[in-house]
Amino acid sequence: MPVPKTGIERGGARGILSGPRFLGRPVVDPQIRNLREEDYPYLRSVVNDWWAGRQIADLMPRFLFQHFQTTGFAAVADGAPPQIVGFLIGFVSPTHPEQAYIHLVGIDPSYRGRGLGRALYDRFFETARGFGCRYVRCITTPTNQASIEFHRRMGFKVEPGDAVTAAGIAVRSNYSGIGQDRVCFVKDLRS
Amino acid sequence: MPVPKTGIERGGARGILSGPRFLGRPVVDPQIRNLREEDYPYLRSVVNDWWAGRQIADLMPRFLFQHFQTTGFAAVADGAPPQIVGFLIGFVSPTHPEQAYIHLVGIDPSYRGRGLGRALYDRFFETARGFGCRYVRCITTPTNQASIEFHRRMGFKVEPGDAVTAAGIAVRSNYSGIGQDRVCFVKDLRS
Repeated sequence: MPVPKTGIERGGARGILSGPRFLGRPVVDPQIRNLREEDYPYLRSVVNDWWAGRQIADLMPRFLFQHFQTTGFAAVADGAPPQIVGFLIGFVSPTHPEQAYIHLVGIDPSYRGRGLGRALYDRFFETARGFGCRYVRCITTPTNQASIEFHRRMGFKVEPGDAVTAAGIAVRSNYSGIGQDRVCFVKDLRS
Repeated sequence: MPVPKTGIERGGARGILSGPRFLGRPVVDPQIRNLREEDYPYLRSVVNDWWAGRQIADLMPRFLFQHFQTTGFAAVADGAPPQIVGFLIGFVSPTHPEQAYIHLVGIDPSYRGRGLGRALYDRFFETARGFGCRYVRCITTPTNQASIEFHRRMGFKVEPGDAVTAAGIAVRSNYSGIGQDRVCFVKDLRS
């Protein structure tokens, strides 16, 4: 499978495009650490470029970097200074404490295809288990086939919807607003 | 003070524009209840109009209605069906459990000036105290004088910044991105 150049979309956007050939390949560098508030200015400045010009910044307000550090992660490449080349923003649901949710994930285009997406997800799964969660949910756009395949490889199942795509994927219509259909994923952390 | 017609802005946006004349006035109707996921489609469809056409919807992704119900509130007016005429979305910080944060608040333009903003904030303060929080933080744009005055009336103090507005208000430059200065507020729930 070719590795697409852009990570798409708003509302379930993922820049995670590692191909199957990276399955199981250990990521030695970059290193993954918890997200920090000081990561915000840099990521705010590059994230629209990482999404090929799409307006993503509104989906990552600064408060996520201030208040969701325990379930947010940055992948940092060695250098002087070290450079953030990927991130994942998620949380444990206060309303449904058995659930965790992944909101936004992005990988620097020049660092795609190294298994960084998998490494960030794995770190989040481990963290969510530590908080006592059983399920992880997230969404993506029906047109983002690479994201759909990535989530299936990561053990997510597509949740039932009220419509299907041409490729037979269940979607929830108007999930993120009129005309904004989404594929909804759930992963059982025990399976 | 005249009541402005629009609730402004992204990144600290507030449609809360009740004037001082409503201080202490009890709100009998609408009633305030916790936010629900089923509130999302309606609010998603009206919120840009409530902000006079600004693109606010990205600031209120559906997950806030699914997973932050205990610290989110809707003001609902009697009717058949009942109508949501205001909302507040906030949370208790997982990283800083002594802090709560108010992300987004909106009031239907035809229901402004009734003290609904105050009622929603008071409900959030009470809830945050119940979760053991001591501080509530939020932000607004430096040009939103009505919002700045509202927050001062609600007991918030302006946090130190690295610049000041023409009106002498401290701001944090580039807080929400380059050129996106913000006024940062904090309220001590014990004072």
